[in-house]
Amino acid sequence: MGRLSALFDPESVGVVGATDREGSVGRAILENLQETYDGEIVPVNPSREQVLGLECYSTVTAAPAIDLAVLVVPPDIVLEVLDDLGETDTRAVVVVTAGFAESGEEGATREQRLCERAERYGLEIVGPNSLGVMSTANGLNATFGPDSPREGSISFLSQSGAFVTAVLEWADEQRIGFHHVVSLGNKADLDETDFLREWGDDPGTDVIIGYLEGIDDGTAFLETAREVTEDTPIVLVKAGRTDAGAQAASSHTGAIAGSERAYETGLEQAGVIRAHSVQELFDFARALSGLPEPDTDGVAVVTNAGGPGVLATDAVGDSRLEMASLSAQTTDRLADVLPEEATRYNPVDVIGDANADRFGDALETVLEDDAVGAAIVVSAPTAVLGYDRLAETIIEKHEDYGKPIVACLMGGERARAAEQVLRGFGVPNFFDPTRAVAGLEALTRYREIRERTIDEPTTFDVDRERAQKVLSRAERYSDNRVGVESMELLEAYGIPTPASEVVSDPDRASEVARAIEGDVVMKIVSPDVSHKSDIGGVRVGVSDDEVASAYEDIVARVRTYQPDATILGVQIQELVEMEDSTETIVGMNRDPQFGPLVVFGLGGIFVETLEDTAVRVAPIGESEARDMIDEIQASPLLRGARGREPAHIDAITETIQRLSQLVVDFPSILELDVNPLVVAPEGVQAIDLSLTVDTDRLEGDEP
Amino acid sequence: MGRLSALFDPESVGVVGATDREGSVGRAILENLQETYDGEIVPVNPSREQVLGLECYSTVTAAPAIDLAVLVVPPDIVLEVLDDLGETDTRAVVVVTAGFAESGEEGATREQRLCERAERYGLEIVGPNSLGVMSTANGLNATFGPDSPREGSISFLSQSGAFVTAVLEWADEQRIGFHHVVSLGNKADLDETDFLREWGDDPGTDVIIGYLEGIDDGTAFLETAREVTEDTPIVLVKAGRTDAGAQAASSHTGAIAGSERAYETGLEQAGVIRAHSVQELFDFARALSGLPEPDTDGVAVVTNAGGPGVLATDAVGDSRLEMASLSAQTTDRLADVLPEEATRYNPVDVIGDANADRFGDALETVLEDDAVGAAIVVSAPTAVLGYDRLAETIIEKHEDYGKPIVACLMGGERARAAEQVLRGFGVPNFFDPTRAVAGLEALTRYREIRERTIDEPTTFDVDRERAQKVLSRAERYSDNRVGVESMELLEAYGIPTPASEVVSDPDRASEVARAIEGDVVMKIVSPDVSHKSDIGGVRVGVSDDEVASAYEDIVARVRTYQPDATILGVQIQELVEMEDSTETIVGMNRDPQFGPLVVFGLGGIFVETLEDTAVRVAPIGESEARDMIDEIQASPLLRGARGREPAHIDAITETIQRLSQLVVDFPSILELDVNPLVVAPEGVQAIDLSLTVDTDRLEGDEP
Repeated sequence: MGRLSALFDPESVGVVGATDREGSVGRAILENLQETYDGEIVPVNPSREQVLGLECYSTVTAAPAIDLAVLVVPPDIVLEVLDDLGETDTRAVVVVTAGFAESGEEGATREQRLCERAERYGLEIVGPNSLGVMSTANGLNATFGPDSPREGSISFLSQSGAFVTAVLEWADEQRIGFHHVVSLGNKADLDETDFLREWGDDPGTDVIIGYLEGIDDGTAFLETAREVTEDTPIVLVKAGRTDAGAQAASSHTGAIAGSERAYETGLEQAGVIRAHSVQELFDFARALSGLPEPDTDGVAVVTNAGGPGVLATDAVGDSRLEMASLSAQTTDRLADVLPEEATRYNPVDVIGDANADRFGDALETVLEDDAVGAAIVVSAPTAVLGYDRLAETIIEKHEDYGKPIVACLMGGERARAAEQVLRGFGVPNFFDPTRAVAGLEALTRYREIRERTIDEPTTFDVDRERAQKVLSRAERYSDNRVGVESMELLEAYGIPTPASEVVSDPDRASEVARAIEGDVVMKIVSPDVSHKSDIGGVRVGVSDDEVASAYEDIVARVRTYQPDATILGVQIQELVEMEDSTETIVGMNRDPQFGPLVVFGLGGIFVETLEDTAVRVAPIGESEARDMIDEIQASPLLRGARGREPAHIDAITETIQRLSQLVVDFPSILELDVNPLVVAPEGVQAIDLSLTVDTDRLEGDEP
Repeated sequence: MGRLSALFDPESVGVVGATDREGSVGRAILENLQETYDGEIVPVNPSREQVLGLECYSTVTAAPAIDLAVLVVPPDIVLEVLDDLGETDTRAVVVVTAGFAESGEEGATREQRLCERAERYGLEIVGPNSLGVMSTANGLNATFGPDSPREGSISFLSQSGAFVTAVLEWADEQRIGFHHVVSLGNKADLDETDFLREWGDDPGTDVIIGYLEGIDDGTAFLETAREVTEDTPIVLVKAGRTDAGAQAASSHTGAIAGSERAYETGLEQAGVIRAHSVQELFDFARALSGLPEPDTDGVAVVTNAGGPGVLATDAVGDSRLEMASLSAQTTDRLADVLPEEATRYNPVDVIGDANADRFGDALETVLEDDAVGAAIVVSAPTAVLGYDRLAETIIEKHEDYGKPIVACLMGGERARAAEQVLRGFGVPNFFDPTRAVAGLEALTRYREIRERTIDEPTTFDVDRERAQKVLSRAERYSDNRVGVESMELLEAYGIPTPASEVVSDPDRASEVARAIEGDVVMKIVSPDVSHKSDIGGVRVGVSDDEVASAYEDIVARVRTYQPDATILGVQIQELVEMEDSTETIVGMNRDPQFGPLVVFGLGGIFVETLEDTAVRVAPIGESEARDMIDEIQASPLLRGARGREPAHIDAITETIQRLSQLVVDFPSILELDVNPLVVAPEGVQAIDLSLTVDTDRLEGDEP
């Protein structure tokens, strides 16, 4: 057991605010504890001498040793009790009391003070506003919920106490068992990451599942979850996904909703399997807690029912799994064990008159095949098929071959007993073939998570000092927006840019243009002009002798359309002409939870409208950068489809990584766009740049 | 009752092949009939005098009048029995016997003969290879399945008999009742469309649901379903969606799988609501059979449980529904009836200590609000909330306000009784908030289907004779592929094309180019060259004096790269230069089930790779053509986003319709591509064309 062992395996539990008043939370907790808890129960309440037959103490200091203190006193008293606890050996505390950050300003201040005390006394506090904690290992139910879970290997964290009470009775009916359960409440002290860490090391936990509305510290979460998922799968429902939901979530327990795209990316990078409904959460948990991982993605469907078999096959086709191609040997063997009218290809149809033994023969034959990583048994009820016997057969084959099997014994009452038998051996049974496939898919997803290698981000040799100098100039500009005049920033980080200079008179413009080979591009440089082209602030392909007059023209146009704009000059830039080139975008947004999110995508207005982009939380390693390129839909074109020369993928990969390094090095960069980054077979060129700098954080950028 | 009344409401049922042999299909059917059927049962079997206590007749001609004959005789005997039935008054027949088209060549021939007899004697035949038919109105269970359905208003067709047996017992447990059930078998005679027509007129059917692997006649289906869905919703699972599934489906009952995109489009245009799993099929059916349609898309969520409330809100955000904005009056009233800590905005959180009355007050208040079209009640179990009382409250409000309410009373056993009460009044209860929202969404989807107007396709004044002349030339070309030399085809149908001519020598090329204003585009004309640009067969922006040498050059290149290509000449085409223009594609593919599928999408290789297209089955009316333009993701750009002039939407709309008219007029056109169709603010221009003609069908094109 880890740091939080006292929370789940206490030898004694103190209930501070214990009472025998009917319908009270204090009584409910005490009764739950009395029902199944193995350890000592210590009621604390200055106005009682006995509660429900137990001796009651006036304060925690007067009470015998308490491993875990559960507080159900009024909000005002909570801080006092924490002070008292500071004097005892108690370190694990659950604050059930509400009336903290979730309920206005006064509550928020109170929560602040609670945190200070946690720090001061070294307390590990769950809550406030928590339903409590449970552990089936020792019968601990320190909650005021109406149900206790059955024993199992799923550990469950929830930001909503109601979510726990809503699922426990149902889960019991479904024979889904739990190891530890915690209702996080307001997460003033302990949060989701603490429990991931705790359960990741806990041999009693096979799967961690959770309901979250927000993640407090994305960076810590990502790091911890990556480690934990090497051994233990994590499945989460992140609620508040949609605008409507996020609004609801933030009025609930005061969670601050990060942007959905950041969560999607962050959870994916963390190796978390995401569920989008209660049903999915438990379907995935059921598969992950009872079944071995499949070695390959090939699935065999064995069925006595044409239609449901096709539905399972469709679901496999929709998933990341695939229908296994059975070997010739397998189909020959199937021909031996099945009647002539049966289908000996995948899906294997053992046909309507099959009994459990025929199912068993077919199942055994497909499981022998190396192409088969997992099997789904789909059956419709018939007069000749005994479901109990079929369940036994499935378990037999499951144990013989060690490959995951999911069952789909359709029917109502007649499938019930068989279902119980299957579940007892970890084989989930679903009425709907689509859900059976989703369960298997979760296993495959987890195998991929375990097998992935996360490479260390490359550290390129860059000129940080020069970059910092460029950024510090941002203070001069309105809104701290920096533009094309700061292309030096990219140069400092080794990102290729065309030759360019910002000039402030027509003569110098001509001089610079002459020094550059070929025609040039001219762009207005102004922190106030965001759409340069729209107001005539850009000229492409200007010859040397036109440059001076073009300068006057550009400045005049900008003055006409935006009289108030500060004009810093005009950029004279080499005209990039690479064959088979494509405009892309690379950029960064800083997310409050997860930090710098790097974006790569195709440029040009049509493709931008189609939003064909890939996102990762920085820092980004080489293989992740490559994944980003492959992830966009138009990737085949960059890779050379349709008779085009492939773009210089290595150069794009490096640019993404160098940009990642830049935004990690400088927390003062709030957002950044390189648009376009022109990519071509011969390399890449960053043509335009804009970024916003948080000048208050410039100090934090240490060169 | 309709044409098929004898199938579902017979006064007598003959079982041909009736037997008392244990475990036989003939006995199973007879027993099912004996169990609940109101009418007369007539066993027919030449080798029995009595079967299960009923008098048995040697032939159908010797038997008393039979309204519905169920055949369970060996395959060879089926045709003889049909001949006998031809002499009687019997017209409704179910052929349970297998061994027809699903089982090889001999069976296919047998099925052919069965169809001939259906035609000859005017028989209405279900099957062969059918499980049978059921009607709960008169207790008819003429199947060999193990279960009988409970009474209800859902009529159910299935191409898989096993699918029927797989769901019936489960549905009974879920208190889902049926009116008619038919297992379609091989659909040799009667198919899905016949039953849609029948049940569309049937007052006992509120919802039609089905499991299909293929649709026999897409055009008839589309037409019938459009009509039926004006009054009766249709929900279908179309299995064999994925490549893997389609392969499985076609080995099952010999269904020919149409392309998935065609089905998707065809079913959508038909007004069919598509389900993607068994669970969805019944979730939708449950909502559609018990609840009224909502007037608006606004949904109110009333909950005592933060987390589950957020999940419901997320699901609403993901759906086509929206969270209703409650009026100030409503929130004021909520403030009156709810405690201070409750949330009086949507989702309305009545908080954990709410009893059923408080739920009722909140529910009543939100239902009063015109912005609320439907409500979802989400509850976690608590000590103070009685689920039975809550169910009664919900039903009370449901009846008072006539607005649809879906319940999500979470929990296990304790929710069971309440669930039964709710279902008894048509209010579905789901454990998972996501499913509750999906149920409501089906109602909204059906409202949209009922409200939509399908406008008659415009008939443009075109030159059919000229078009036909162009098409008839296709016979001369290899593979009957016609290219840019036939732009006249588009002209004949009033689709704008640039000035052009196909020439076969350099001098004529120069002459033509001079007659065209500005530079020209030159393209090789050859039925054998499919990627003209790739081999240097296209030159853009050629000035008049370069034309002759460009001609020689193009021909030489094509001869080098494709020495065997037949060269018909070179097209000299006006260079289209429209400001703010965009390349699009408009084309057609002929689907074996649904006929001509017209496609509109953006062109250019990047956007083609992103597959941003809209599809419709022709003929296409004006509003459908407009919908196609709006449906593509890049539509905002055509409509003038990002500072662009909007494209000439009317011209695009007309071009889509004219193309639709062309491909409907000429069934000989197998596929056709106008790529690109350049669209701009001033209009459209078809730049390039290719099509394939079925020269055997040229006769069918009547000008």
